Amino acid sequence: MPKRSGDGAGEVGAELDDVFHALSDPTRRRVVERLSQGPATTSELAGPFDMALPSFTQHLRVLERAGLVTSEKQGRVRTYRLAPEPLDRVDTWLAGRRALWTRRLDQLDALLYDLKEQQK
Amino acid sequence: MPKRSGDGAGEVGAELDDVFHALSDPTRRRVVERLSQGPATTSELAGPFDMALPSFTQHLRVLERAGLVTSEKQGRVRTYRLAPEPLDRVDTWLAGRRALWTRRLDQLDALLYDLKEQQK
Repeated sequence: MPKRSGDGAGEVGAELDDVFHALSDPTRRRVVERLSQGPATTSELAGPFDMALPSFTQHLRVLERAGLVTSEKQGRVRTYRLAPEPLDRVDTWLAGRRALWTRRLDQLDALLYDLKEQQK
Repeated sequence: MPKRSGDGAGEVGAELDDVFHALSDPTRRRVVERLSQGPATTSELAGPFDMALPSFTQHLRVLERAGLVTSEKQGRVRTYRLAPEPLDRVDTWLAGRRALWTRRLDQLDALLYDLKEQQK
């Protein structure tokens, strides 16, 4: 898999790679789900999971690298927040696909309509 | 990463794992982009890529396993089509996150409004 490159176009692609990769794991999706309800500390996030803390924080690091979450440390407590911008980027990519797909279905509808009219 | 399990709930999660994983590669996303414009054969899909055919067909297999594309062989030619249902599932997952996120922003708006009113 290509990693972040220097040029602007490659950068966007590489970022989407990281975002989709981060979301391909159920633990990480559940963390995103939890954070969409509001900020939470590491231990609040880890609570529901039967997982060693180092493995869990590794998941948090993957989310942070992909830009999906940000974190802030106060004393010994680290608090995580959702950064919705990468989710918007996924959404934009999906919307582009849907636009083309829908246009194709519309063209198919039109074709079927014409065929039906010709048979009248 | 957990693979497909037998129970219904696990199944949905595992499928989203595969879909997000499939979309985490730029070559595979470009294939999905191309197929959202209409069906295409293996060689039509491979055309724009400077990649050995076995590597390229491996990408097609990942997309097919994730349910993002279907294929049909006629003679020696295999034609691929986009299967939009998994993209809809990604969309549904994102929409769930956005609903919660937007509600939180609304609550924040309301709170800021109340604070402003109190200062009048």
